[in-house]
Amino acid sequence: MMVVVAYDVKTETPQGRRRLRLVAKACIKFGQRVQNSVFECLVSPSDLLILKDELTQIIDPEQDSLRFYNLGAKYSNRIDYIGQVRHLPMDEVMMI
Amino acid sequence: MMVVVAYDVKTETPQGRRRLRLVAKACIKFGQRVQNSVFECLVSPSDLLILKDELTQIIDPEQDSLRFYNLGAKYSNRIDYIGQVRHLPMDEVMMI
Repeated sequence: MMVVVAYDVKTETPQGRRRLRLVAKACIKFGQRVQNSVFECLVSPSDLLILKDELTQIIDPEQDSLRFYNLGAKYSNRIDYIGQVRHLPMDEVMMI
Repeated sequence: MMVVVAYDVKTETPQGRRRLRLVAKACIKFGQRVQNSVFECLVSPSDLLILKDELTQIIDPEQDSLRFYNLGAKYSNRIDYIGQVRHLPMDEVMMI
C-alpha cells in the first residue's frame, strides 16, 4: 500500500536539524522523497509499523508533526500533481 | 471527499514568497492547514477543479511543486498522526 508521510520538524536548534535529517533517513528506506517534507512510501502493514515506531523515537512530539495518509493498494488514481516532479514512479524504479 | 494538498514553493525571491502566500490563501478557502505546506481540504469534485485551476495560475511550474492526494469520502481511517496537531477535525468545525 502507498502511504504518504508529511512532516514538520522545528529546525531552530541543532537538535531539530538533526531530527529532520533522521526523519528523512528513516523515510528514504521505505519510499521516495517527492517534496522537501513529503515522502511517498510503498509499504506493507508491518513495514508501516516499523517506520512509525522509528519516527516516533526520532521526533520531539512537543515540537514536531508527522502525518500519515494511507492511499491503499490502488493508489495511482489518488495522486495528482502540478509543476515540478522530484521522483520516479515507484514501480519503474523497482523494476530496474 | 478529502484531498490533501502538499506544496513546495521556491521562496528565494519576493515573487516566490508571494506565490507561497497566495497558495495558502487559495487552500484555506477549502480546508485546514495541518502543516506548514500541507492542507487537508474537504471538497466536492467541482471544488477540486476550481482549487486546482486557481493553484495552477498561482504557481511557477518550473520551480514549484503541488501534489494532491485524494483520500475519498471515507477518509478518517486513512489519516494518522504523531506529535503536534495544528487543526480541528473538519466535521466539528463545520457543525459549530
